[in-house]
Amino acid sequence: MTGTLYGLGIGPGDPDLITLKALKILQRSPVVAYPTLEDGDSLARAIVAPHLSGDQQEISIRIPMAVERKPAQDAYDIAAEELSACLASGKDIAVLCEGDPFFYGSFMYLFGRMAEKFPVEVVPGVSSLTACATALQTPLSARNDVLTVLPAPLDSETLRARIEAADSIAIMKVGRHFERVRLLIKQMGLIDKAHYIERASMENQKIMPLEEVPADAAPYFSMILIHRRGQAWK
Amino acid sequence: MTGTLYGLGIGPGDPDLITLKALKILQRSPVVAYPTLEDGDSLARAIVAPHLSGDQQEISIRIPMAVERKPAQDAYDIAAEELSACLASGKDIAVLCEGDPFFYGSFMYLFGRMAEKFPVEVVPGVSSLTACATALQTPLSARNDVLTVLPAPLDSETLRARIEAADSIAIMKVGRHFERVRLLIKQMGLIDKAHYIERASMENQKIMPLEEVPADAAPYFSMILIHRRGQAWK
Repeated sequence: MTGTLYGLGIGPGDPDLITLKALKILQRSPVVAYPTLEDGDSLARAIVAPHLSGDQQEISIRIPMAVERKPAQDAYDIAAEELSACLASGKDIAVLCEGDPFFYGSFMYLFGRMAEKFPVEVVPGVSSLTACATALQTPLSARNDVLTVLPAPLDSETLRARIEAADSIAIMKVGRHFERVRLLIKQMGLIDKAHYIERASMENQKIMPLEEVPADAAPYFSMILIHRRGQAWK
Repeated sequence: MTGTLYGLGIGPGDPDLITLKALKILQRSPVVAYPTLEDGDSLARAIVAPHLSGDQQEISIRIPMAVERKPAQDAYDIAAEELSACLASGKDIAVLCEGDPFFYGSFMYLFGRMAEKFPVEVVPGVSSLTACATALQTPLSARNDVLTVLPAPLDSETLRARIEAADSIAIMKVGRHFERVRLLIKQMGLIDKAHYIERASMENQKIMPLEEVPADAAPYFSMILIHRRGQAWK
């Protein structure tokens, strides 16, 4: 009997935003795996720390943050080997995924390598998308709104066209693209409809009008929300 | 001291896909409110039924399903009055919201009427969007995919243009628009990239290629997912 690989959506950051289903699987899995930065820090592990008993085997998956894809893909190859050996020995593994595993999540790289060889079960989670709308206290999308999610690394002309064609827009993975994206939104006349949300649902959550964000302050875990229609739900 | 109005995302249908946070608030609230169909059935209440103690006051909010907006808006006016009286007497109220309250949720109509008068706290939930991707065992969006969510009631030309401009597309509120939307997707040459998901995460969940759905079978709680790029995560 091989083990099962669980891709657990653990939510956007507040430890209480994990689902009962993910919590039960997390607590009964003998092995817990999670991505770490090169310095060894893991946001995913930090999120679930209050729920860990301390007697589980832990596997950290160290993913290089290079712009080119090859180093990260190599790291996923190595991680898939390690996890496969563990599953082959009969142990279940809970892989921690910030937000939802299938919403721009890095779990898909393990899923792509392992789903045809081992039983894989995914548990959906609260995504950063709705956590940011909650933080902003503003409905994300209403009635017949078109909602578009855009990764900030896309070129500016693509971003412009997609923003123009939607009512509600979420721009993810802002990071080093922040100033280019902010300038674009300003040029489009939408700056007063745009907000910046950082670390939604966490203790150090920040929310502000996009215009007021200090230059170059945007970390990777930030999002820009634009509501072209204003308060359509009123 | 007035009570607090909680908008609780209770997830897509599996009772275990509620978050710990929503569960705690639900179980300590003296009053639970939820939308019902005209026949009195409430999907939201059915989802959380395993978590209710039975000694809470319940308020059902009966919303007419008419195409015109006025009857539903009148119903929300009346519900807001009833909930306001309850809050004014000092009781907290947990309003049950399928999926996430701010993701195309009807909670926004209560939010719009009450948030300026009473403390309102929203708890995000697992949305049908990622629950459907999980059901399909296919990542919703990867890397720099553009993801667009489209309500099916939009006219066909708008739907066509928005589908053409996205990599991953979710079409919600399919219901009586099903055959028109399916024909459009077929005409666009995307039928082999489209799936139909009904009641994601529930016991009677159904998943099938869009082409194979029997005519006129689509209920309101169904979604169509289109992945134009195929398996981009591999």
